Amino acid sequence: MKFIVGVDLGGTYIKAGSVSKDGDILYQTSVPSMGEVGPEAVVNQIAKAVETIKQNHKGEEILGVGIGSPGMVDLDGGTVKYPPNLANWKVFRLGEEVGKKVGTRVEVENDANAAAVGELRFGAGKGMKNFIMITLGTGVGGGFIVDGKVFRGESGGAGEIGHTTINYDGPLCGCGNHGCVEAYVGQKHLSRRVAEQLKSHPDSLINKLIAGDPEKLEPMIISQASDQGDAYAIQVWKEAGMYIGTAVAASFNLFDVATVIIGGGVAKAGKPLFDSIEATIRERVLSPLKPRVKVLQAKLANSAGIIGAAALIAE
Amino acid sequence: MKFIVGVDLGGTYIKAGSVSKDGDILYQTSVPSMGEVGPEAVVNQIAKAVETIKQNHKGEEILGVGIGSPGMVDLDGGTVKYPPNLANWKVFRLGEEVGKKVGTRVEVENDANAAAVGELRFGAGKGMKNFIMITLGTGVGGGFIVDGKVFRGESGGAGEIGHTTINYDGPLCGCGNHGCVEAYVGQKHLSRRVAEQLKSHPDSLINKLIAGDPEKLEPMIISQASDQGDAYAIQVWKEAGMYIGTAVAASFNLFDVATVIIGGGVAKAGKPLFDSIEATIRERVLSPLKPRVKVLQAKLANSAGIIGAAALIAE
Repeated sequence: MKFIVGVDLGGTYIKAGSVSKDGDILYQTSVPSMGEVGPEAVVNQIAKAVETIKQNHKGEEILGVGIGSPGMVDLDGGTVKYPPNLANWKVFRLGEEVGKKVGTRVEVENDANAAAVGELRFGAGKGMKNFIMITLGTGVGGGFIVDGKVFRGESGGAGEIGHTTINYDGPLCGCGNHGCVEAYVGQKHLSRRVAEQLKSHPDSLINKLIAGDPEKLEPMIISQASDQGDAYAIQVWKEAGMYIGTAVAASFNLFDVATVIIGGGVAKAGKPLFDSIEATIRERVLSPLKPRVKVLQAKLANSAGIIGAAALIAE
Repeated sequence: MKFIVGVDLGGTYIKAGSVSKDGDILYQTSVPSMGEVGPEAVVNQIAKAVETIKQNHKGEEILGVGIGSPGMVDLDGGTVKYPPNLANWKVFRLGEEVGKKVGTRVEVENDANAAAVGELRFGAGKGMKNFIMITLGTGVGGGFIVDGKVFRGESGGAGEIGHTTINYDGPLCGCGNHGCVEAYVGQKHLSRRVAEQLKSHPDSLINKLIAGDPEKLEPMIISQASDQGDAYAIQVWKEAGMYIGTAVAASFNLFDVATVIIGGGVAKAGKPLFDSIEATIRERVLSPLKPRVKVLQAKLANSAGIIGAAALIAE
């Protein structure tokens, strides 16, 4: 038996697991990231998780360790630059350092790119050569697959669709720019806007679900309401789909790509969100692209981080 | 002596010229496109122009014919699809048909991509591996150079930066979408907006230059006024630079590219426009890209179409 280790490096936790060559999770574990201490501490935590997994596969062959990391990733030495949510970390050769500890092949990619590779190898993008993967969560992540490979750009930072301006005069984004699509549909931005609008929608089921506490508002609550047919909640997803679809259409025009795969927690909103994204793209994209437009739900769901990271080795 | 023929296929005229291997124009001619008759007539006109040029280079060797064409171009057979401004043209193997007539190697590219290749071989992009070329004219054309080659996408249609939405609720664009950057700074859109705003700027020099006739308003006039220090005209370019810079910043984030080369008639506005584009990009682009941002003026200017087309053969 052979297995791959996939490591999903987050700001708080490291989720790691063994994955079969077919993309099935065999065993899973998690440890604190300890990012506040510094990159060396993170390396130790990753090595610890890998060790735990190896203990569960005695006598089996490890093919390598794939790591999905926040921040810009340089393939040379698996260098991670300025990852958000990991303090005391500027530029660090993560792949090389983890390699020294675990004694096996290590590949590092940006987490959004890793998610895209996961969908390409094992998920909704299987057999495709060109697509955009969007992860809708705290932020709006993007990984672009061009000609069967991650499109990395000059220094590995490509695919930042979350920071596509959809309104030059729009709300302030965490990146410092105004009107990025993330400033409309990133988890906190979306929740804050809905909390404000709720005052004008006293009949919405959302009010009941949060029991009057706007702090409790999160995309999952809005989805619960829309699933039960709440008109305002459905309208929220329709609007969010318009924002997302506008950014996707611009990317389609720039890359001459016509498939988008959508994952992440916010994507659980399902049909009202996806229908609006698809309608918006079809309306806004240049005419030669219209007949090719495809909007797909990501398949790897909860374990996308681990499986995507493992896919870096499967490649 | 060896020479290349560059053909700039426009809606009204075909401009063609012989170009040296170093990118210098040797001889130039032009014939009507006859696009209203159909693609076969266009082929005949191109062949006629090539023949005239050959007559001027008797005893010399022709290396090939490069054609910059409007519309989407498929490299296979130099197929041109749905070119705007060329009536009765749907899908046509232009390269192959011209090749039969002229009996030499023929390469066809989209005109914006050809302009980018021209700057790459002979102009402001010489020696660079990654940049975006924007042509500011009737429309806003884009050609993306990634890793030293034209980035073509799935079907040769990539690089359509003119149709990046910068305001989802913005003015209607010729493409049917709302708020494309072209709907703000494409020649007619820009002139129309200025004509409207002029009423509130009775002291602007532009009023004098157009002698009260808004039909006379064109970017050249606004440039004349800004060159003479007209405050409103300078403000127009500052605003246009903000629109263009917003779209460029989004492309920089998506492609992880940090150089833009700007050409086309509207680019003649010079410093007030370029300063605003550069300031906007620096303000809006993601922080890892900021120190790398470069905004350059295209070098090939008036003959960019011919030299860019010739560069397809020089490649």
